[in-house]
Amino acid sequence: MSSSDIFTSEVTGTMVLILLGGGVVAAVNLKRSKAFAAGWVAIAFGWGFAVLTGAYIAQPSGAHLNPAVTLALAIKGDTPWSDVPLYMGSELLGAILGAVLVWVAYYSQFQATLHEPDAVELKDANPGPVHGVFFTSPEVRHNLMNFLTEVIATFVLIFAILTQGLVKDADGTVGLGKLGALITALVVVGIGLSLGGPTGYAINPARDLGPRITHSLLPLPNKGGSDWSYAWVPVVGPLAGAAIAGGLYNLAWG
Amino acid sequence: MSSSDIFTSEVTGTMVLILLGGGVVAAVNLKRSKAFAAGWVAIAFGWGFAVLTGAYIAQPSGAHLNPAVTLALAIKGDTPWSDVPLYMGSELLGAILGAVLVWVAYYSQFQATLHEPDAVELKDANPGPVHGVFFTSPEVRHNLMNFLTEVIATFVLIFAILTQGLVKDADGTVGLGKLGALITALVVVGIGLSLGGPTGYAINPARDLGPRITHSLLPLPNKGGSDWSYAWVPVVGPLAGAAIAGGLYNLAWG
Amino acid sequence: MSSSDIFTSEVTGTMVLILLGGGVVAAVNLKRSKAFAAGWVAIAFGWGFAVLTGAYIAQPSGAHLNPAVTLALAIKGDTPWSDVPLYMGSELLGAILGAVLVWVAYYSQFQATLHEPDAVELKDANPGPVHGVFFTSPEVRHNLMNFLTEVIATFVLIFAILTQGLVKDADGTVGLGKLGALITALVVVGIGLSLGGPTGYAINPARDLGPRITHSLLPLPNKGGSDWSYAWVPVVGPLAGAAIAGGLYNLAWG
Amino acid sequence: MSSSDIFTSEVTGTMVLILLGGGVVAAVNLKRSKAFAAGWVAIAFGWGFAVLTGAYIAQPSGAHLNPAVTLALAIKGDTPWSDVPLYMGSELLGAILGAVLVWVAYYSQFQATLHEPDAVELKDANPGPVHGVFFTSPEVRHNLMNFLTEVIATFVLIFAILTQGLVKDADGTVGLGKLGALITALVVVGIGLSLGGPTGYAINPARDLGPRITHSLLPLPNKGGSDWSYAWVPVVGPLAGAAIAGGLYNLAWG
Repeated sequence: MSSSDIFTSEVTGTMVLILLGGGVVAAVNLKRSKAFAAGWVAIAFGWGFAVLTGAYIAQPSGAHLNPAVTLALAIKGDTPWSDVPLYMGSELLGAILGAVLVWVAYYSQFQATLHEPDAVELKDANPGPVHGVFFTSPEVRHNLMNFLTEVIATFVLIFAILTQGLVKDADGTVGLGKLGALITALVVVGIGLSLGGPTGYAINPARDLGPRITHSLLPLPNKGGSDWSYAWVPVVGPLAGAAIAGGLYNLAWG
Repeated sequence: MSSSDIFTSEVTGTMVLILLGGGVVAAVNLKRSKAFAAGWVAIAFGWGFAVLTGAYIAQPSGAHLNPAVTLALAIKGDTPWSDVPLYMGSELLGAILGAVLVWVAYYSQFQATLHEPDAVELKDANPGPVHGVFFTSPEVRHNLMNFLTEVIATFVLIFAILTQGLVKDADGTVGLGKLGALITALVVVGIGLSLGGPTGYAINPARDLGPRITHSLLPLPNKGGSDWSYAWVPVVGPLAGAAIAGGLYNLAWG
Repeated sequence: MSSSDIFTSEVTGTMVLILLGGGVVAAVNLKRSKAFAAGWVAIAFGWGFAVLTGAYIAQPSGAHLNPAVTLALAIKGDTPWSDVPLYMGSELLGAILGAVLVWVAYYSQFQATLHEPDAVELKDANPGPVHGVFFTSPEVRHNLMNFLTEVIATFVLIFAILTQGLVKDADGTVGLGKLGALITALVVVGIGLSLGGPTGYAINPARDLGPRITHSLLPLPNKGGSDWSYAWVPVVGPLAGAAIAGGLYNLAWG
Repeated sequence: MSSSDIFTSEVTGTMVLILLGGGVVAAVNLKRSKAFAAGWVAIAFGWGFAVLTGAYIAQPSGAHLNPAVTLALAIKGDTPWSDVPLYMGSELLGAILGAVLVWVAYYSQFQATLHEPDAVELKDANPGPVHGVFFTSPEVRHNLMNFLTEVIATFVLIFAILTQGLVKDADGTVGLGKLGALITALVVVGIGLSLGGPTGYAINPARDLGPRITHSLLPLPNKGGSDWSYAWVPVVGPLAGAAIAGGLYNLAWG
């Protein structure tokens, strides 16, 4: 497919992924939201169905939505290495834009959370409700273990994608197909429920880095820092997990 | 298909959509209900599976169930503009009837909520449990931002419907197909979880206007006003979101 | 298909339906259960996936599992009237047996709930945790409104089944097919979330009458009466809802 | 298929099954986890989607992931008896490895739960949060009833697998197919919701024995004993349930 089609499809799909994924964290974390304190089941299903929605929207480009997926498909040989920078750049741009849309959709809730008198108690060491909308933070900060958790969680995602039998379109684009996208979305719900506890499961470099950039740029009052010292973990961890999954797949079933 | 078939299918399907959608809010909001206080996860899945059920029932007409869907399919060119008034009118009528059925099914719960001694404390600025059964209300009232939230949420719904590959029946009616309806239902669960926090996600003009009309007509004691000053937001917002989605789709993939 | 195949399939499928359906109520209601107080979302999904499991097990006979389904399929003309008594009898027998299995699986939990010192406070007017495992009870007792709630909820179930396009097997048995059974199960989750609040949604005469018979026979200490004065509502209501759905279907789409 | 393919597929699939299944218990049970106290709905969906993920990963070998499944398919005649030891051994090894990965992914959470001052109160007769990550324990210890609960729950799982129409691959391997794996995963969610209350539903000898071995070997401080006296119940119970299901299937539909 053409470069401009990859760009359009991946930007739009990842934008919606982050709009819904960041949205569910806003819904649960922010004050004056009808879903306030709806709990981890809401978070996990929200992110899973965010993947589902983004995946249907980005079907023309195979719906990577995630540099870790792009890397693994390149290692497997389904995506040409020459397309990788375009895929990854589009995913990052889409993620930045999606986080802006979360801010618009939850504008009043951000205001309420950051401005109202007792907002202070909501911002402590445990990065706090507003940070959680934009980027992941570990519950216990320990770079090596946090990194390993992201490697393991991403390995599961990528290995499940690679092994389920991808569908090749008429123009050679490889994707999940209609039922495959549904199953992958439920796998993401599962990863969230099962492996999201320690780090908040980035499992996608664009999902974490894009909104983190948005957070650093947005004119949010009292927003705090963007925790750049942790930023490498949810980028390098997922890429490492994807590389291991891709390599192992080629070894075992390739 | 014939006009009478469109009418029968859309009225019945939207009636069931609102019966189940309004029903889950009644189940969670009203006193003396077994699902009282079951939380936002119940609400989001309840509305999603309401879409699922309505979508199967209204398959003969393509299961629009929503004037925003009808508008977008007309913009895309799948539904003739001449059928649009019939579709939209049928959807509105179905929604009005569905809300009446919610009232019948939860008759004793409405009685308990509106009549029992402590019912007074349940009706405050935040529109209250009975209002929530019939129409949406924003958590923070701010016309522009509420409007934008509805535009964004409906854009996601419509764009996901348009891009997933609609199925054309033998008689030319365009619909989601069996798996597509399931996926769309889960997308609606996702939108509820992720973007329902600020306004309660109408994302469907008939879903809000129809039951609001029912509320204004029903002989419910202590029911309060029907908040007509807000009524334009969940009508115009979704239509605007659908128009943007339809236009963008034609531009990018049409 | 042969009578003995209908018998085997419907008895086994309905037995598993009630084992899992009654089981989730036991899991949530009874003391010393790991799922104690897991809430209405657990109940609704538990019953829905009980239908899913029973539906796959009973595929050879079309997986009615419910006299209301049998009645509607006879009215539609898919099931011969001469098979109706066998279907209904098998469903009732399966339901009786399923409730016995719930008792075996949760034996220690029934003991704990009925014997332990504070068990008394668990049995009050609102029929109480053990009753809920076996039969439905309305939150507000009002025969006419309870009846109407069951009519409406069953109408939705049956209409959704009739309209989704049933599959005819090689031997003429009509059933939901593999994807149809999944969708119907999610429709049942939806009905539970949305219309279960007032009466506990029997929507199936065998589901209520069978376990009620089991309850009246089981040697449970302190079990209380089996509330026979209400027993007609969850039998006649669902049959009436099914008859209306079947008639309307024939009128509109038949 | 070749022995080495069975080995690779079953080890990897069962490893992921236990990583996600044990992971969700860690997520809900352990301190400093974002999903702490997320409840039984999280547990049941987490285990179900763990099955989904493992089932796609292990498709080449038919995705048994469970000695009870292997036994039943051998009784039905789909899996040669000569392959049974290799399947079962691979499943057990995968389960041992999966539990090690849970420990790595939740390393800091195990530390927090076992080391922090108030950790003592978390370890009482009711086997406690850390034990629950590795092996099942009954709420009320009663060997016969616990055994029967495991027999019944596994019977449901296996009977639902056998009856849903398995798919035979080109090389003769029998498995669930893509939609079948999704349905089976939801059946497992249902079994968890409905029959998990008394014993924590092992329904899989490898799922319980493998992580129990891991628990006995891991250098966890204050980890307590590995409750070997109960270990036979979640091994023999599921195998007995599978044998009954396999036998009954052959009798009724074979």
